[in-house]
Amino acid sequence: MSMFKKVVIIGTGLIGGSIGLGLKKRRLAKEVIGFSRRLKNARLAKRLRAIDRVGSDLSVVQGADLVILATPVDSIVSFALKISRLVDKKCIVIDVGSTKAAIVRKLSRVIPNFLGCHPLAGSEKKGIRQINGEIFKNSICVITPIRSTAKSTVVKIKRLWQALGARVIALPAKDHDRILGFTSHLPHLLAFTLIDAVPRQFFPFSASGLKDTTRIAASDAGLWSEIFLSNRSNCLDALAVFQTRLLALQLALRKQNKKLLIKILQHASQKRKILK
Amino acid sequence: MSMFKKVVIIGTGLIGGSIGLGLKKRRLAKEVIGFSRRLKNARLAKRLRAIDRVGSDLSVVQGADLVILATPVDSIVSFALKISRLVDKKCIVIDVGSTKAAIVRKLSRVIPNFLGCHPLAGSEKKGIRQINGEIFKNSICVITPIRSTAKSTVVKIKRLWQALGARVIALPAKDHDRILGFTSHLPHLLAFTLIDAVPRQFFPFSASGLKDTTRIAASDAGLWSEIFLSNRSNCLDALAVFQTRLLALQLALRKQNKKLLIKILQHASQKRKILK
Repeated sequence: MSMFKKVVIIGTGLIGGSIGLGLKKRRLAKEVIGFSRRLKNARLAKRLRAIDRVGSDLSVVQGADLVILATPVDSIVSFALKISRLVDKKCIVIDVGSTKAAIVRKLSRVIPNFLGCHPLAGSEKKGIRQINGEIFKNSICVITPIRSTAKSTVVKIKRLWQALGARVIALPAKDHDRILGFTSHLPHLLAFTLIDAVPRQFFPFSASGLKDTTRIAASDAGLWSEIFLSNRSNCLDALAVFQTRLLALQLALRKQNKKLLIKILQHASQKRKILK
Repeated sequence: MSMFKKVVIIGTGLIGGSIGLGLKKRRLAKEVIGFSRRLKNARLAKRLRAIDRVGSDLSVVQGADLVILATPVDSIVSFALKISRLVDKKCIVIDVGSTKAAIVRKLSRVIPNFLGCHPLAGSEKKGIRQINGEIFKNSICVITPIRSTAKSTVVKIKRLWQALGARVIALPAKDHDRILGFTSHLPHLLAFTLIDAVPRQFFPFSASGLKDTTRIAASDAGLWSEIFLSNRSNCLDALAVFQTRLLALQLALRKQNKKLLIKILQHASQKRKILK
């Protein structure tokens, strides 16, 4: 039996399209409808079998029992406001934005049955052509219920992500944003800066180290500027911690303090080996 | 026909062992002998068919036509001094250290037929168990001849690396160190610092971004402290450039200057896409 009757995915990019593909492969929804500001994208999603049909305007959310907001972070709130008068009261609305505090605060005011989600399964390659129904397998999906979230909604959405292959962890939205500031936004900030700092004419002399370290710097500038801005204070905090540590390493190197240098590197190397 | 009759590899770790394996697979040497401070390592190299036999002491370099110094950076010079009185005048001696200026300066004084080399083909996994005769395929090997280097030596060593699958580029040692300060040492410094800055309890919330960005932080602390110290001023220069760029990004974020933020990220993202 399907978990949902009518699912509408707003934003048929990498994440939205991959959810559609996963839902259809596993027959988790009777009908999956895709809506995109760019009709071309939604049509491509249909050709790639990520959705059953293209929604021509937002009124398509009427009668849906699940709406998934999968647009870039900065337009999630405006789409939520637009659909808030159209969706049934029982309809579950989730988003998949990379930052949660502001979105959860705003959306829980206008949509009665909202649950914030963040599947940690992106890629530096965005867009519908990269979709993959297995992208959530063995990944983590954070959900951010608040006090007023219906327990049945949490249970149902948890099952949805688990069916797509993810392990689900519930966190307050604020904690999510603080943590992701370190585990996702900080690495992105540094990768963008590192590639910026390396002179282009030195590129022929790069081994896998530079390539791996900066892979995520190929990510979309528009998407990531929105993510950084929507989690600004946590990003700045994480940057400050990083800078303090970098200054310590720099000082050890400047002073040729080999003992301290080895101690810092050893601690880091051992810590990295824990990260599987 | 073999390129060399008697090759002695001093230091049978990842790089030394992989060279041995590559030489033997391609029948580039009649005999490959391995020497290691730890007899156990050399014996393991023999079992893994990276060398034909184990050299019990350094006098084994007598009569060799190629000696490869493949120990950690800090012991290359002391080994070179020890073998300088033992090797034939015609014997070519190369090293494979990650920094070149100091090594080339010192070794070219004591060894008549020396050529500095740096195959850009390491891994965060060190040690003989990781050896791979194909590790140099499609990689770059920098060679650092000086004015007095015999042309025949350059030609022969170039052919050796090419036979192992590498593309060879000749550079002055100083240029090598400056470039690698950016393309290799800076990414390592940042990866060590990043993993240090991320609280361990946040690790469960990390996606591929953090993992890729810090993969090289699992590298050996002893090896890397030596590399950083032996290329200290270039590392500090690269760090200073990075910090200036990071401050610019940080300021754009702090001031919520979206236009500037997008501009910085866009430039970085486009630049990263050039790095193949």
